[in-house]
Amino acid sequence: MDKLNIIKIGGNVIDDENELNTFLINFSMLKGKKILVHGGGKLADKMLKKLDIIPQKVNGRRITDKSTIEVVTMVYAGIISKSITAILQKNNCNAIGLSGCDANIISANIRSKDPIDFGFVGDINSDSVNISALNIFLNNGLIPVISPITHDGKGELLNTNADTIASQIAISMSKDYEVNLYYCFEKLGVLSNTDDNNSVINEINKSNYLKLIEIGTISQGMLPKLQNAFDAINSNVNKVTICHHTEIQNIIDNCKQSGTTINA
Amino acid sequence: MDKLNIIKIGGNVIDDENELNTFLINFSMLKGKKILVHGGGKLADKMLKKLDIIPQKVNGRRITDKSTIEVVTMVYAGIISKSITAILQKNNCNAIGLSGCDANIISANIRSKDPIDFGFVGDINSDSVNISALNIFLNNGLIPVISPITHDGKGELLNTNADTIASQIAISMSKDYEVNLYYCFEKLGVLSNTDDNNSVINEINKSNYLKLIEIGTISQGMLPKLQNAFDAINSNVNKVTICHHTEIQNIIDNCKQSGTTINA
Repeated sequence: MDKLNIIKIGGNVIDDENELNTFLINFSMLKGKKILVHGGGKLADKMLKKLDIIPQKVNGRRITDKSTIEVVTMVYAGIISKSITAILQKNNCNAIGLSGCDANIISANIRSKDPIDFGFVGDINSDSVNISALNIFLNNGLIPVISPITHDGKGELLNTNADTIASQIAISMSKDYEVNLYYCFEKLGVLSNTDDNNSVINEINKSNYLKLIEIGTISQGMLPKLQNAFDAINSNVNKVTICHHTEIQNIIDNCKQSGTTINA
Repeated sequence: MDKLNIIKIGGNVIDDENELNTFLINFSMLKGKKILVHGGGKLADKMLKKLDIIPQKVNGRRITDKSTIEVVTMVYAGIISKSITAILQKNNCNAIGLSGCDANIISANIRSKDPIDFGFVGDINSDSVNISALNIFLNNGLIPVISPITHDGKGELLNTNADTIASQIAISMSKDYEVNLYYCFEKLGVLSNTDDNNSVINEINKSNYLKLIEIGTISQGMLPKLQNAFDAINSNVNKVTICHHTEIQNIIDNCKQSGTTINA
């Protein structure tokens, strides 16, 4: 089976021009087939603020009204997607910036309005991912750069969690590839002490996961990320790692142990 | 030789939700290989205004500073590209929204800063168009929807005239296809009297072109559009037509005579 590396890059790296450039140089040099999934929530929040649209969130999740879906589409699928793609092209990486509607790569269901109406938010599962469309790109030497905007097939664009997009693509593509999934961000991994970057937890598995939640080590934004990571490792994805964005080349091409490995 | 229809849709149609929907239904039903090129200047102007960026123009051409290229990328490659693509997908047309940086389909040269510094504006010629990349999409049943954002290969995004993109793609693709190019907008064609929609000039060629300029029938925005049309017809493009957007199906699939035909 051919190998495929799927890398999700987080918002704090995208926000920092130097960090993003460093990451994109490292990403460009990775050998073999690869897919990049990006977020960009902080830049979207800034743009919403500039346009006097107050971001509304419930339990850390954005309520996406009509104005908000337009702005997040502009930010994610417009400036972030095309800036990343242009820099990758400069680095001799033949990238292509895509949203879910493009070649229908990811279709989603608008989230149930009960109990909370989240607006234009799309939920996906592994059936949402169009494997044959993604293979057109991969088999022609193109590197998909995927924005967290999906569509419902009825003409509506939908905001979808980028971590979930990465894990569901990983699950789907595991039918055709040995898939390794990397959640890359500005920390060295999942930390046992959030103030100490050297306190990386090397492995999280079913048996220590609940304890880590219980003692409060894993909380807030890390909870859905880990849920996505477990979904992937429990559904035939070969390897799931949460790591610092500068470490991907060491981990992937040099087989170095770094970050937090998620095991079933 | 296989046939390829290239359709440029103008800003006034994009601005009107109903007109755009009608056009996209008609476009979806066109048989055979096709490419859509879109503008969107009016929506970009509105967004620039909302963000307190005053659009600067010299001779009708936008000066594109750093803030402006970011906004036009958000508008053209973000909301317009993805909205059009999502609606085409709804209409069973397997569209893919692309900018010049995506799969490196169109690389451009930043315009000379002498005599006027236009900022992040890219000039292209037929060598700028990546025929083999476009063929990957066309040969896999995908319909390219192309935004007027190009890149310089050095990481910069550039604003490029959409009419020129349409004509240069048409010229390049004429190596592999019998290409028909359609400039579609809200009028029935080039009018001899701008107030009379029934005064369509059926044909413009080298011999009546200069006279039409001399007597003022062709002026302002129509001048560069016609220059692009002549560039195409003089460089092996099979047919160039300027017509109303609702007429494309009649012209292409039903061989009806409509609009203004450009001849060498």
